[in-house]
Amino acid sequence: MKINKSLSLPLYQQVKRYLEEKITLKEWEAGHRLPTEKELSSQFNVSTITIKRAIHDLVDEGFLYRQSGKGTFVTDKKEQNISRLVSLRNEAWEDHNHPHRTLNFNREKAGRKIGKLLGLSEKQEVYKINRIKLQGDKPIAIEHSFIPTSLVPNLNPSDIENELLYNLFEERYHVKLEKAKVYFNTTLADEYEANLLKIPLGEQLFVLERYTLTEAKDVIEYSRFILKQDQSRYFLEVPL
Amino acid sequence: MKINKSLSLPLYQQVKRYLEEKITLKEWEAGHRLPTEKELSSQFNVSTITIKRAIHDLVDEGFLYRQSGKGTFVTDKKEQNISRLVSLRNEAWEDHNHPHRTLNFNREKAGRKIGKLLGLSEKQEVYKINRIKLQGDKPIAIEHSFIPTSLVPNLNPSDIENELLYNLFEERYHVKLEKAKVYFNTTLADEYEANLLKIPLGEQLFVLERYTLTEAKDVIEYSRFILKQDQSRYFLEVPL
Repeated sequence: MKINKSLSLPLYQQVKRYLEEKITLKEWEAGHRLPTEKELSSQFNVSTITIKRAIHDLVDEGFLYRQSGKGTFVTDKKEQNISRLVSLRNEAWEDHNHPHRTLNFNREKAGRKIGKLLGLSEKQEVYKINRIKLQGDKPIAIEHSFIPTSLVPNLNPSDIENELLYNLFEERYHVKLEKAKVYFNTTLADEYEANLLKIPLGEQLFVLERYTLTEAKDVIEYSRFILKQDQSRYFLEVPL
Repeated sequence: MKINKSLSLPLYQQVKRYLEEKITLKEWEAGHRLPTEKELSSQFNVSTITIKRAIHDLVDEGFLYRQSGKGTFVTDKKEQNISRLVSLRNEAWEDHNHPHRTLNFNREKAGRKIGKLLGLSEKQEVYKINRIKLQGDKPIAIEHSFIPTSLVPNLNPSDIENELLYNLFEERYHVKLEKAKVYFNTTLADEYEANLLKIPLGEQLFVLERYTLTEAKDVIEYSRFILKQDQSRYFLEVPL
């Protein structure tokens, strides 16, 4: 690869694309240690400032991570099947691999907005649950869930500690679930999100909004998932 | 709704959220004309600069559009099922509603990167097709497709003018398709993308990378879709 100094694409972006390609094509696998900034700078014949900027961006985007005194390494990005992510239940590994940390668990009036989304009046009650989803000990998503109390009476904070919502709906409340509808969107991390997810302000995030419908056509849950992209590659398989 | 001047959230963002809610909850439907900036500024007791900024952002994000001399209106965002978008074929409406404009149609050596993605050697040939996907007369996506010439011999630019790739594979080449695997990502529009999609530089875009597999386990196509978010709400339905 040659860096082309006459291209309009900034040099650091050319370096970045080159490095990103090495990673996505798995020429450099997870755990691979990068050449030093000095080595890269002489390889590309650009300044170390250019190299630093390219590496900084790739660290931000989760392709690389630094270990102080040891160097810069290729991240192990986990592939995540979105359908599985959305529909997951009854799977023991999930509890172990993706535990939650509950930030808030409240009973409150739905209010105008959430009421409308769940098909309730403003005054009907919902559980409002804010959680962090973890992978190992790292935050990977923020979840805001709203559940009508009428459909799921007497839900307690401890109920959701060790059980997935879908399992609770089906096994404890004997609700038959029909489908989930999930809207995809993106956002740039605000201060609250950046803090919780331990990422820089303004980083690109996925927003998934999930409506879960019962066979009786009630919306039993509306959740807003705010997903980091830096530890995961999200995918979907469609049979043809 | 009251604007809270002591909140750390900037005023224009509070206004923006309020307006966005009116739209997403369909209190203001597609085509609804917004109050004037002056009316909004006195309603919220904030400056018209604050109102302008909120509206500017919502125009950028596709919630609103301006008609000069007439005012600002709510956009008609089409809901798009992602599975359908990915697997689509054989559907007459697609040709009418989502025509393509071909920018480039070339035969060339796969090269290292595309070769690796398609399971080919660097020297094997691929069709490289760059297209714009339109909704009505508006660009909604850029598509870059790569197809091994060995699996689809004698493909011509005119073949793809009026027919979807999947239809061609199955009906003309009698290839049995097994599944598509689609990776989700985001990017910020660069100059090239912003120009083609007629959006501001740096706007958030979805990137979908699709690998189509045949029953014989060949990758018959790798496509990179760069999707605007401003005319569409993308969703997915998952049976439970």
